[in-house]
Amino acid sequence: MTERQKTPDDLPDVTGLTIGILGGTGDQGKGLARRFALAGHQVIIGSRKAERAQAAADDLDEGLPVRGAENPVAATESDVVVVAVPWDGHRATLESLRAELAGKIVVDCVNPLGFDKRGSFPLPVEEGSAAQQAAAILEESRVVAAFHHVSAVLLLDPEVGAMDLDVLVLGDDREATDLVQALAGRIPGMRGVYGGRLRNAGQVEAFTANLISINRRYKAHAGLRVTDI
Amino acid sequence: MTERQKTPDDLPDVTGLTIGILGGTGDQGKGLARRFALAGHQVIIGSRKAERAQAAADDLDEGLPVRGAENPVAATESDVVVVAVPWDGHRATLESLRAELAGKIVVDCVNPLGFDKRGSFPLPVEEGSAAQQAAAILEESRVVAAFHHVSAVLLLDPEVGAMDLDVLVLGDDREATDLVQALAGRIPGMRGVYGGRLRNAGQVEAFTANLISINRRYKAHAGLRVTDI
Repeated sequence: MTERQKTPDDLPDVTGLTIGILGGTGDQGKGLARRFALAGHQVIIGSRKAERAQAAADDLDEGLPVRGAENPVAATESDVVVVAVPWDGHRATLESLRAELAGKIVVDCVNPLGFDKRGSFPLPVEEGSAAQQAAAILEESRVVAAFHHVSAVLLLDPEVGAMDLDVLVLGDDREATDLVQALAGRIPGMRGVYGGRLRNAGQVEAFTANLISINRRYKAHAGLRVTDI
Repeated sequence: MTERQKTPDDLPDVTGLTIGILGGTGDQGKGLARRFALAGHQVIIGSRKAERAQAAADDLDEGLPVRGAENPVAATESDVVVVAVPWDGHRATLESLRAELAGKIVVDCVNPLGFDKRGSFPLPVEEGSAAQQAAAILEESRVVAAFHHVSAVLLLDPEVGAMDLDVLVLGDDREATDLVQALAGRIPGMRGVYGGRLRNAGQVEAFTANLISINRRYKAHAGLRVTDI
């Protein structure tokens, strides 16, 4: 795992990992839950209330291996935990789950954005980014940033078989970023690409505002591909 | 020009425009000069000293329509002016050229980055981004942000016929962004894609740090493509 990686395809086997999704009742969380379950993973949607979490799981395609639970249960019973809560609940949610998330790979996909009549724009974050805030709070977790640019609409669309984008994966723990890259690669069409250290996560989160502008201008669900790799 | 644009291909004709490149003696400026000249544009490389500018022009492929001049001359005699100076000279250069740049489309491609042993990272910019700093200084110019992610190595490589990337073009003046998108499209393989308002330029500039990380990891000259448009 410590050798220089020259292609984004030389990654660990992640078959069989259980994936928890905090904030899995939102569209992005639900969409990721759906795609990971379609790829054969057990998925636990987390929410503050178990009933809301279960209702979100029940919304998804019948027969998928997705269930709902309170956030602490979802965190404890998963191998990898995705944080997909709204930005304004980010800090409080993570502070309340320090113990449950200790030792785990935590994948932050939160975009701190504001909206006004001219569109969206990045909000300033004291720690530099949502992912760095997560790392500051979760000192005993292995925080990775990823899945920021994935369209919830496409994730949930039964007509969309493959997603046409690369998922930028950022972090300071090589084994953890490799694993999350592999997880991204479980979703058809997606490729997990290493995107830099956690200190460079802020602009990846903020870039979601640009994708929203692009989507408006071109009536699209835009994503990014990295060329030459 | 005010209708909704649904594809990045419906753009104005920019044939015949003369392009000035401030800081054109650096690799990125020289590379852009070369590609615009290969596309048939008259190009004027600007520098603080005319001789240095002319030497940079002379470095390029023989017979290309590129000449060198002092920055104020390059600014005055060009239809569109690209700012490719190092970040630490950005403010002073633009403050000294307010009059020459008045009324013109000014394309800022400067990335405010720092470097240390762990790689590169975005520098904080009081105005939010280099492009917003340019707009604050050049009140009478039409400032657009573009060409941040273009590899200087590939621009200058005679073996590289086509560039495999989209150029994100940001700005608040639709006619100006359309024109710069069209200019990007003059370089084989490149596509100019609207990327949002100027207030969303900071993360596009900062994203160059991520591309540098990607290039290191994968030994590549990475660029971005926007999917679904």
